[in-house]
Amino acid sequence: MDILEKLAWRYATKKFDPERQLDERQLERILRATNLSASSYGLQPYKVIVVKDKTVKEKLKAASWNQSQITDASHLIVFARYEEVNGRHVEDYIENIAGTRKVDRTQLNGFENMMKGKLDALDADTKANWSAKQAYLALGTLLTASAAEGIDACPMEGFDAAAYDEILGLKERGLRTVVIAAVGFRAADDGMQHAKKVRKSLEDFVELV
Amino acid sequence: MDILEKLAWRYATKKFDPERQLDERQLERILRATNLSASSYGLQPYKVIVVKDKTVKEKLKAASWNQSQITDASHLIVFARYEEVNGRHVEDYIENIAGTRKVDRTQLNGFENMMKGKLDALDADTKANWSAKQAYLALGTLLTASAAEGIDACPMEGFDAAAYDEILGLKERGLRTVVIAAVGFRAADDGMQHAKKVRKSLEDFVELV
Repeated sequence: MDILEKLAWRYATKKFDPERQLDERQLERILRATNLSASSYGLQPYKVIVVKDKTVKEKLKAASWNQSQITDASHLIVFARYEEVNGRHVEDYIENIAGTRKVDRTQLNGFENMMKGKLDALDADTKANWSAKQAYLALGTLLTASAAEGIDACPMEGFDAAAYDEILGLKERGLRTVVIAAVGFRAADDGMQHAKKVRKSLEDFVELV
Repeated sequence: MDILEKLAWRYATKKFDPERQLDERQLERILRATNLSASSYGLQPYKVIVVKDKTVKEKLKAASWNQSQITDASHLIVFARYEEVNGRHVEDYIENIAGTRKVDRTQLNGFENMMKGKLDALDADTKANWSAKQAYLALGTLLTASAAEGIDACPMEGFDAAAYDEILGLKERGLRTVVIAAVGFRAADDGMQHAKKVRKSLEDFVELV
């Protein structure tokens, strides 16, 4: 598997084949990949909501300029940041490290206090953007891993985030929709799959120092 | 190549082998992968600065809490957003589409005006965060593609962005450092490579609807 060939193969799939669904193993693999994404301190300050239910997808479509990929794609992946990333998140994470690595929790005190201090120092807007950026990093992982697995995806920003929070019942649970991606398989007759990829030249994109 | 095995193999490498450098082909491949990253509308509103020069790396290290990976890693990748993403960026992009896909520029008028309208409607802060998020998405692509290629990386937020802009002469060119990643090869004696990866359980990370 050549990762560059896979990335050249992918494109923002607007037209999905509504008859083709990800099987359980395929879905689990791209979710596991997303979960393996790097995040600041390793805190993973977001949740991934996977929408399969047709009625819910129809409602979300109406909150997404009626873009057909919402309902035609196999699954819709919603990245939602935690509105409050605070001491509780840090403590859960520290417990997880201690349990996973079989180390005494007290050995992690320094790391724990450092993270708490850093989070406390962020104002609400900065923290919201920090969490959102971690979700975008994970979206990059999802898109790349999906391409590696031969699974199509369409990352999307064109939706009403507040309506998503309402429809998915996220607000009352302290979650806020950040970005979404439809995943599934491209329609055979989607001409865009044959369009040449448009990117900056490497000379324009990269500067060597 | 199993992408999940590759993602499990990667970790935020803090201790690099200073004797091992990426060769030209390896560097080019991870940069090409990063360039293939998805971005909003395809606008790629950021630049990638690749730092190899030892003197510059020493200066950047001093602006990064003296973290040794800045100088020990083979290359330092700096993602810098364009401070002004405006009509000129859209026009360059439209020219690129027209040239790459051999379509008449006028056929792209609708897309061009839509993008210009969207960008005009964003205030400076929102636009800065939007650009930064695209860079984080590309960072996710870089980290995943690097892992696929057996190249180590350490994504980092712990640095003085204003000092980076100064040292790299970015500010006067309308660029602002967003996030960085050191790339290279792990030191054989870095014990962290053997530490169990800590992640939320899939049950906690994912919700099915």
